[in-house]
Amino acid sequence: MTSVKKIVVLKGDYIGPEIMTAGLSVLDAATRNEAFSYELIDAPFGGDGIDRAGDPLPQSTIDVSKQADAVLLSAIGGPKWDNAPRRPEQGLLEIRSKLNLFANIRPTKVTQAQIDRSPLKPQYVENTDFVIVRELTSGAYFGKPRKLEAHQAIDTMYYSEEEVTRIMHQGFKMAQKRNKHVTIVDKSNVLATSKFWRKIANEVGKSYPDVTIDYYYVDAMTMAIMSKPATFDVVIIPNLFGDILSDEAAQITGSIGQIPSMSVGESGPNLYEPIHGSAPDIAGQGIANPISMVNTVAMMLTESFDEKKIADKITAAVDYIIENHYVTPDMGGKMTTDEVTQKMVDYIKKYE
Amino acid sequence: MTSVKKIVVLKGDYIGPEIMTAGLSVLDAATRNEAFSYELIDAPFGGDGIDRAGDPLPQSTIDVSKQADAVLLSAIGGPKWDNAPRRPEQGLLEIRSKLNLFANIRPTKVTQAQIDRSPLKPQYVENTDFVIVRELTSGAYFGKPRKLEAHQAIDTMYYSEEEVTRIMHQGFKMAQKRNKHVTIVDKSNVLATSKFWRKIANEVGKSYPDVTIDYYYVDAMTMAIMSKPATFDVVIIPNLFGDILSDEAAQITGSIGQIPSMSVGESGPNLYEPIHGSAPDIAGQGIANPISMVNTVAMMLTESFDEKKIADKITAAVDYIIENHYVTPDMGGKMTTDEVTQKMVDYIKKYE
Ligand SMILES: CC(C)[C@H](C(=O)O)[C@@H](O)C(=O)O
Ligand SMILES: CC(C)[C@H](C(=O)O)[C@@H](O)C(=O)O
Repeated sequence: MTSVKKIVVLKGDYIGPEIMTAGLSVLDAATRNEAFSYELIDAPFGGDGIDRAGDPLPQSTIDVSKQADAVLLSAIGGPKWDNAPRRPEQGLLEIRSKLNLFANIRPTKVTQAQIDRSPLKPQYVENTDFVIVRELTSGAYFGKPRKLEAHQAIDTMYYSEEEVTRIMHQGFKMAQKRNKHVTIVDKSNVLATSKFWRKIANEVGKSYPDVTIDYYYVDAMTMAIMSKPATFDVVIIPNLFGDILSDEAAQITGSIGQIPSMSVGESGPNLYEPIHGSAPDIAGQGIANPISMVNTVAMMLTESFDEKKIADKITAAVDYIIENHYVTPDMGGKMTTDEVTQKMVDYIKKYE
Repeated sequence: MTSVKKIVVLKGDYIGPEIMTAGLSVLDAATRNEAFSYELIDAPFGGDGIDRAGDPLPQSTIDVSKQADAVLLSAIGGPKWDNAPRRPEQGLLEIRSKLNLFANIRPTKVTQAQIDRSPLKPQYVENTDFVIVRELTSGAYFGKPRKLEAHQAIDTMYYSEEEVTRIMHQGFKMAQKRNKHVTIVDKSNVLATSKFWRKIANEVGKSYPDVTIDYYYVDAMTMAIMSKPATFDVVIIPNLFGDILSDEAAQITGSIGQIPSMSVGESGPNLYEPIHGSAPDIAGQGIANPISMVNTVAMMLTESFDEKKIADKITAAVDYIIENHYVTPDMGGKMTTDEVTQKMVDYIKKYE
């Protein structure tokens, strides 16, 4: 007998719940005739956490997430909570830390169908298929001291040997399953933490003789992401630089409304989320693009539950709506979130 | 009688001296029949400083630079000095600091002639014309403590009120002379120094009621630089983020081999330099693109010496060689550095 998988649902803010609903409808359709059963556990988080439970990350949400098989998160934050004592983003940083999700994995892939949507000329972007492995629970995001005073402010970038070593192994292992090439990004001509990063990369790299390595300064890497993205395979990058460059990488696909991500730790559940924000400007209009959330659900099925076959149905439904141009306004279409979702659900039912 | 302007020449490493020679030839040609006289003072710096004087920034170079009317620098650094006790880059950080050059100004402009060279589709990049104002003597580059230990490493991001205030005034003043729009870049949803940055931006902005302001998180800004670069005018950005995003901005022009920059302080000489690196891979082959250095010379003439007319001759010469495709291999041409330079010199002589 298969066990019932527990999926914690953090439904998000602004367009967050709109696309979460879409993602869950598609999950429901795709699993209907499958021997995969799951339970959805709603928990307050982000702005919704502040509204429903007084904090962006209530203790109960941490507890239930730790017990879960996967955590599914939609976009959070927005102006409503700008002056909250603890903002929604604070909850996001904390859940990463509390679940020890030290690696954030973001695929950057440009399919033939997407090529026209890229702001880059086709010859630059074609064949792009790399993965960013961003360190997620240390670096400038968590270093102490952090001080905001009347006349000065301080942040601390910090890395321990253990933190850098484990993210390197994560990245090198992924490379072994892919095209066996790793790119290390840092600013080691200036920063001590970056010199440290590069030194450990070099050491860890020796245990992976089948993987080739190159090194980029972060500034040069912003250029390379645009001028030769197809040359990368696995990019291992510190937290702050990873935040910046993974958005640049998303932009070259021209499809930020489509990209999922996952955050992983040594044990415990992974966390899955679309990479884009909560888009307060279009919330409530029913026109948010559900594709990112649907792809996030597919990523969860593959990576946490090894349900590649179910994930493939979902991916096929996404391809189908894109090919037939059943898409929301951000992709040049005229459909609502619900209409697009219904098209995917119908496709999956027919496909079976 | 006009005084003789003192220009300190820091000739650079690898392709550095090759393009410096080109820049100085063009300067010589353009000033030949003008009431502008100058003296060139060669000083050791960077890798060349290590080789000739045992340090990337000898005290004598600081002294002579402080007395100068302008400092002209070519690209520095490279593998030869990777294991030097103080690397060439250290000299660069220090000269910025010692001359108190707190603002680095980088124009990002895409002319009609350049549009084809951009990796971006024309509709994204046309009409792009903005300036990045990067804080240059504080932030993550200079904060203490900085520690590289066996099992951990630390850097400190630091900003004082005075440091942020003066760079804001610099940027807002530039905006007043341009299109009266300022974009503030930070990561204020996470970093204390960024919250501080944004708060002061907001306060200083009140003294410039004719200038509109918008705010971007640095990750979102990497996307906007690609998707709507024409909407920016003056971008004010902290040191580390400025390093990263100014290279991205350079890349959208497709012409990093052409872009000059200047670093300015409250008093004392400005420092002018091309934005690209010393390109060890093509050094010694005589094929380095001299345009960046030539444009750097033109920028110096305009900004430090108010010699717009002479600068215009140089800019016209640059336009001429590009239009006629008298360019180096990186721009799809077949000419050497010397040949391209000679074409500019000949053009200037004829033009007069
Ligand atoms: C919302 C913000 C705190 C977050 C980050 O900076 O990590 C986001 O930009 C991301 O990349 O997931
Ligand atoms: C060479 C390096 C130290 C320097 C910097 O990071 O500031 C360079 O990248 C630049 O932008 O001028």
